[in-house]
Amino acid sequence: MSDLPARIDINEEGPREGFQIEPGPIRTEDKIALVDGLAGTGIRHVQVCSFVSPKLVPGWADAEAVVAGFTPRDGVEYTALWFNETGLNRALAFRDKLKVTGSIALAASEKFSQKNLNRDRQGNNEAMRKQTAAHLAAGVPVTRIGVMAAFGCNFAGDIPVELVVQTVEDGLGIAAEAGVTIESLGLADTMGWATPARIERVVGTVRARWPELRLTLHLHDTRGLGIANAHAGLRLGVASFDTTVGGLGGCPFAAHKGAPGNIATEELVLLCEEMGIATGIDLDALLEVGHMAERIVGHPLPSAALRGGSLGSFRARAA
Amino acid sequence: MSDLPARIDINEEGPREGFQIEPGPIRTEDKIALVDGLAGTGIRHVQVCSFVSPKLVPGWADAEAVVAGFTPRDGVEYTALWFNETGLNRALAFRDKLKVTGSIALAASEKFSQKNLNRDRQGNNEAMRKQTAAHLAAGVPVTRIGVMAAFGCNFAGDIPVELVVQTVEDGLGIAAEAGVTIESLGLADTMGWATPARIERVVGTVRARWPELRLTLHLHDTRGLGIANAHAGLRLGVASFDTTVGGLGGCPFAAHKGAPGNIATEELVLLCEEMGIATGIDLDALLEVGHMAERIVGHPLPSAALRGGSLGSFRARAA
Repeated sequence: MSDLPARIDINEEGPREGFQIEPGPIRTEDKIALVDGLAGTGIRHVQVCSFVSPKLVPGWADAEAVVAGFTPRDGVEYTALWFNETGLNRALAFRDKLKVTGSIALAASEKFSQKNLNRDRQGNNEAMRKQTAAHLAAGVPVTRIGVMAAFGCNFAGDIPVELVVQTVEDGLGIAAEAGVTIESLGLADTMGWATPARIERVVGTVRARWPELRLTLHLHDTRGLGIANAHAGLRLGVASFDTTVGGLGGCPFAAHKGAPGNIATEELVLLCEEMGIATGIDLDALLEVGHMAERIVGHPLPSAALRGGSLGSFRARAA
Repeated sequence: MSDLPARIDINEEGPREGFQIEPGPIRTEDKIALVDGLAGTGIRHVQVCSFVSPKLVPGWADAEAVVAGFTPRDGVEYTALWFNETGLNRALAFRDKLKVTGSIALAASEKFSQKNLNRDRQGNNEAMRKQTAAHLAAGVPVTRIGVMAAFGCNFAGDIPVELVVQTVEDGLGIAAEAGVTIESLGLADTMGWATPARIERVVGTVRARWPELRLTLHLHDTRGLGIANAHAGLRLGVASFDTTVGGLGGCPFAAHKGAPGNIATEELVLLCEEMGIATGIDLDALLEVGHMAERIVGHPLPSAALRGGSLGSFRARAA
């Protein structure tokens, strides 16, 4: 009856997503403390930083210092984000601490591609061909396709599922030309357009077409439907999610008006814990790290679970 | 395949739930403006105030002034809340403006009943017998049973579904003794323990047993699962929900630590709008009223949709 996964993988993106948007400045040692704190909760994948231009994203000017500073923990995979060869080379300097793999990053929306990537979809495909070649030349495997705006777009409106399929085909074509095998496919609700019904439609179509690809959902809680969307994904058997502790990246304050925070790690962990789906994460420890994240950024984060607490703690007291 | 309702009824409880918890003081004219604003969005049920002791709930010392002050709108049902005969009599003074009906209010948790109602379940049943008689003596129909803590309890932990069934049976027994017919049954997640699976279990069991009772879900977003729970209810055909605009009643601030805000009206309306379920509510107008509510209480409310906005507005711009 159920496609529910027995366990899921959580890719914690709080440090990377959070600190690029916070007005800050956030101290380097606080960023390091958050990375180390997260790794101590049982989380197995932490995206540590973004290797981007310090002019464009001043919050990540200290990316190198953060990567140099954290204490690697056995069984935890640390990753980073980059958008060009300069960024790739900065990441490669830390191959001892970071898992460096490449991704073919595409957008299902032509208008989003033009506005946010500064090139149309064809132009972006071309850029991804070059980037894939650059990764391979550096000995970096390319195993993933990511599709932005897969559920809707502020500039284009609704995105037909056929366009998502076409975008995945573009990515697989780029991979085939380069002779690499794609293992996983990330579908991102970049602007918070997903609903449970859209998750079912897009995930169902993509999975039927490419059953061999491992799906990851990257969901934003822009309009309060994030956890309902994650639940729809779980029901379809999706077993990999990008999340941020506390919902870092979003903020209930006017200064961040419209900031599309990711779904909060602890809310997804709580949902899974209550559904009997293993995450490997200690929820109460994670909530402590969420409170640490609030102290670091200096304001409350959007996560409701951070205030409500785990149910396990109440059960223990009631017993 | 689907039990999705074609349309749902929303009981807006923002004024009543919100203003009893806000540190305030909130001006009477602001409370009136919010009630009138809500009624202008297409909402058909607005719970205006609580007739409670001003000593216990200072935020509702001006209940009479608020009811006297709002402008009734055709097609909108205005209600109030009370817990004893004094409160009932205060409500009855406004029978021209308020729909006055009685409810048999029970708790599925013995410990919750003791801690929050100051009497055990048997004692509360006895109190409800007397209250039902008092309602009938005043010519007020009693048509509803409400079950608090129906999905779990901070003091008792998990609540077995059998206990919910037993509680409904108690209520139906009280109604039968009094010779009244119960039409609707409210299941409240008073302390934020519901998950989609628990909604399915409790709603499924109760509906199979009493298919003639109209179900209402009263959900709190204590741990971020509120809209996922509402979605689970919709999938089971639940067509009536209690909500609060902006998520009034909850607050992301430390001063309100743990305040269990209701699910936000606009998030449920957005979900329904995107699923093709009619609510009769103009979402963009409702979002405006949500912003008004934030101005009135003087701080951001928990609703993400209030910041993300409707999808319709983006669709219109994209077209």
